[in-house]
Amino acid sequence: MNNNTDAVPESYPMNGGDGTYSYTKNSYFQKAATNVARSMIHNAVAEKLDLNELFSTSSKNTIFRIADLGCSVGPNTFSAMKNILEVVQHKYQQSQGHHFSSSQMLEFQVFFNDQVTNDFNTLFSSLPSERPYFAAGVPGSFHGRLFPNSSLHFIHSSYALQWLSKLPEELLDKTSPAWNRGRAHYANSPDEVRQAYATQFAKDMEKFLDARAKELVVGGLMVLIMPSIPHGVPLSRLPLCVLFDILGSSLVDMANDGFVSEDQVDSFNIPVYAVSPDEMIKFIEGNGCFKIERMELKKPISSIDNDQVTGHALTMHLRASMEVIISKHFGSEIVDDLFDRFYKKTEELSDHLQPIYKEGGTQLFLVLKRK
Amino acid sequence: MNNNTDAVPESYPMNGGDGTYSYTKNSYFQKAATNVARSMIHNAVAEKLDLNELFSTSSKNTIFRIADLGCSVGPNTFSAMKNILEVVQHKYQQSQGHHFSSSQMLEFQVFFNDQVTNDFNTLFSSLPSERPYFAAGVPGSFHGRLFPNSSLHFIHSSYALQWLSKLPEELLDKTSPAWNRGRAHYANSPDEVRQAYATQFAKDMEKFLDARAKELVVGGLMVLIMPSIPHGVPLSRLPLCVLFDILGSSLVDMANDGFVSEDQVDSFNIPVYAVSPDEMIKFIEGNGCFKIERMELKKPISSIDNDQVTGHALTMHLRASMEVIISKHFGSEIVDDLFDRFYKKTEELSDHLQPIYKEGGTQLFLVLKRK
Repeated sequence: MNNNTDAVPESYPMNGGDGTYSYTKNSYFQKAATNVARSMIHNAVAEKLDLNELFSTSSKNTIFRIADLGCSVGPNTFSAMKNILEVVQHKYQQSQGHHFSSSQMLEFQVFFNDQVTNDFNTLFSSLPSERPYFAAGVPGSFHGRLFPNSSLHFIHSSYALQWLSKLPEELLDKTSPAWNRGRAHYANSPDEVRQAYATQFAKDMEKFLDARAKELVVGGLMVLIMPSIPHGVPLSRLPLCVLFDILGSSLVDMANDGFVSEDQVDSFNIPVYAVSPDEMIKFIEGNGCFKIERMELKKPISSIDNDQVTGHALTMHLRASMEVIISKHFGSEIVDDLFDRFYKKTEELSDHLQPIYKEGGTQLFLVLKRK
Repeated sequence: MNNNTDAVPESYPMNGGDGTYSYTKNSYFQKAATNVARSMIHNAVAEKLDLNELFSTSSKNTIFRIADLGCSVGPNTFSAMKNILEVVQHKYQQSQGHHFSSSQMLEFQVFFNDQVTNDFNTLFSSLPSERPYFAAGVPGSFHGRLFPNSSLHFIHSSYALQWLSKLPEELLDKTSPAWNRGRAHYANSPDEVRQAYATQFAKDMEKFLDARAKELVVGGLMVLIMPSIPHGVPLSRLPLCVLFDILGSSLVDMANDGFVSEDQVDSFNIPVYAVSPDEMIKFIEGNGCFKIERMELKKPISSIDNDQVTGHALTMHLRASMEVIISKHFGSEIVDDLFDRFYKKTEELSDHLQPIYKEGGTQLFLVLKRK
C-alpha cells in the first residue's frame, strides 16, 4: 500500500509560479482541449453515471470523491473539476425525491494529484475561494497507488498520460537500433525508437490501469483525455511531434554552433508518447476491469485562432511545459538561446503549422466505467 | 460547504524549506512535546477507540482517515501520524478473527492540513517514502470547514490551536484600555489585553469545535495538544510568554535606537494565546458534541536538557516560527538585528530561563470523543 512510486527517477513538472513563462499563463492549448471535453463529460455523466449504484439511499451523507490526475498548477484543473461537479450535482438533484431523500446532502471532495515536484503551493494559493468542494492535494506518480481501495467515484486526467514514467534505456544505447541520435523525439527517427517509446508507454498504462481499478468504486467513471494519433496518419501531422522535431533541430543547431555538446543532444529525449486508439483498447481489455463507455478522437483545438498559432504563442506554450526538463539536462543557461532559435523557426514555419494545428491535432477522449 | 476561510486576513506559516532558520530544523521543542504525547495517544486509542463503532464488520474494505491540523512542514507531523497509525493498526489486528474477518483490509489515508501559505512543497517532498498510508495535503484554516461530513476517524492537532485566527482590534485602538503599547504580547500588559486575546480565542475555538463536530464520525477521537497555563500560575512562569516578552523588549530597544518606529512596535502583537484547562472545558461543554475522555496538564519538555535552553537554541526556535510574521510587519531587513538582540538577552537570562523551561512549561493534552 505504501506509495514508493515517488522515487520514479524522472519527473517533469510544468513551470510553477505565475510568471511570464509559467504553465498557469501558458496553458491555453490545454484549456482549449478542456473546453471541447466539457460537453463530452456532460454527456458521459448524464448517460453513464448511475448514482444509485454508487451510494446507499439510506445514508444521511453522500460524499462524492473526484480525483484529477496530473493536475499541474491550474487554472485548467479548476474548470474541469467545476464542470464535473456541476453535472453530477444536477443529476443528484434530479434523483432527489425519487431515489434519494430531499434532505440527503451531497458533498464533494476533490483530490488534485501531480508529481511530488509539482508546485502545489501555487496550486493551493490559486484554488477558487468560493469552491463548492473540499480540496486536497495528493503528491505522487499516477503510475502507482495514490488512494485507498474503492475510495473514488470519478477520475479525470487530461493531457497527463502522454508523459512516460521514464525514458526507454535503449534510446541512449549507441549499439541499439533504437539509439536516437540527433533527435529529441521519435517523429523522424527509425521505427525502433518509436517502438521503444510504445513499449514503455504500455508498461506505464498497465500500472496506471491496475492502480485505478483498485481505487475507483464499482460503477465509478474515469475520463481520460490525451494527445493521440489515428492509425495511418503520419507523425508529421501531429502538432506535438512537429514541435518536438523543431526543438530537436534547434538543439542540433546549438551543437553545431558549439553551445551544447553533440553527446548532450544525442542523449536528450522528450518522454512523451502519443498513443493510438487501437493501442488504448488493447491496454484496457488487457486490464479487464473497465468497460469502454465511449471512445472518440476529436480535433481539440478547433476553437484556437490562427493568431494563437504564432511563433510567439507556440514558444511560450512549449517553454512552459519543457523548461524544467531542458534545464535539468542542459543547464538553465541555454534556455533563452534555445527558445529564441525555436521561436525563429516556428515564425518561419507558421504558415505550415497553422493547418496542422487546425486540422491535424487530435485528442483521444475516453470514458471508462469500473465493472 | 465552501471553504472561504482561506480568506482569513492573517496567516503565519512557519519558516519553509530546510535551511538554517527553517521550522524543519528548529522544531525540537515541538518534537519533545510530541514524544510525551506518544504514550498518551497510545493509551487513548487502546482504551477509548472502538473500531466496531466506526466500521461495519461486513464491508470488504476499511479506510481509516486521520487528519493532522496545523501540521506545518514536518518532521514532527510524520512521527505523530506514524504513532497514531501503528496503535490503530495494532488494535485492528487484535480484533481480526473476532469482530473483523481476517481477510478484511485496513487502509489509512492521512490528511496534512495547514494554512494555504504553509510550504506544502517542502512537506510533500519530505514525506517518508515508505509510508504505510495514502497522503494528502489540505490547505485552509482549521477555523472553518476542511472536510466532508463524518469523513474523519481521528483528528490530531499539536501546537497549532494557540494561534489566533486574527488579532483583537482593540490592541491597536489608542482609546481602548486594551491598547497594547510597547509590548508584543500580554504577559506584562494590563488585564484588558489578555482579556481581548481570550475573547478572540473563545470565538476561534467555537468555530474550530463546530467544524470538527461535523467532520468527525460518531465514535471518532480528537487529540488536541497545546501550550496551556494552569489557573493561578503567573504568566512569567510560562516559557512562551517569557520569550515573547523578551522579543517585545528587544523591539522597544530597536525603537529607542531608531531602527523601527515606536508606532510599529505598538502595533505589533503576537497572535498566540495560552488557554487554561478551565476555559477549554467551558468551550467543549458549550459545543456539546464531544465527550472529554481525558484531560491532562503535562510538563512537555522534561526531556529537554539545559544545553537546549541556551540563547542560541531559543533564538533559532523562535526565529523559525516568528520570522514570517515579524518580516510582514517590520520588513525583513530588521530580522537579523532583532534576533541578535534577542539572542544576547536570552544568553544573559539563560540561568533564569532554564528552570522555567524545566518546571514552568505546561502543555494541555486533551482526548475528545465525538458523541
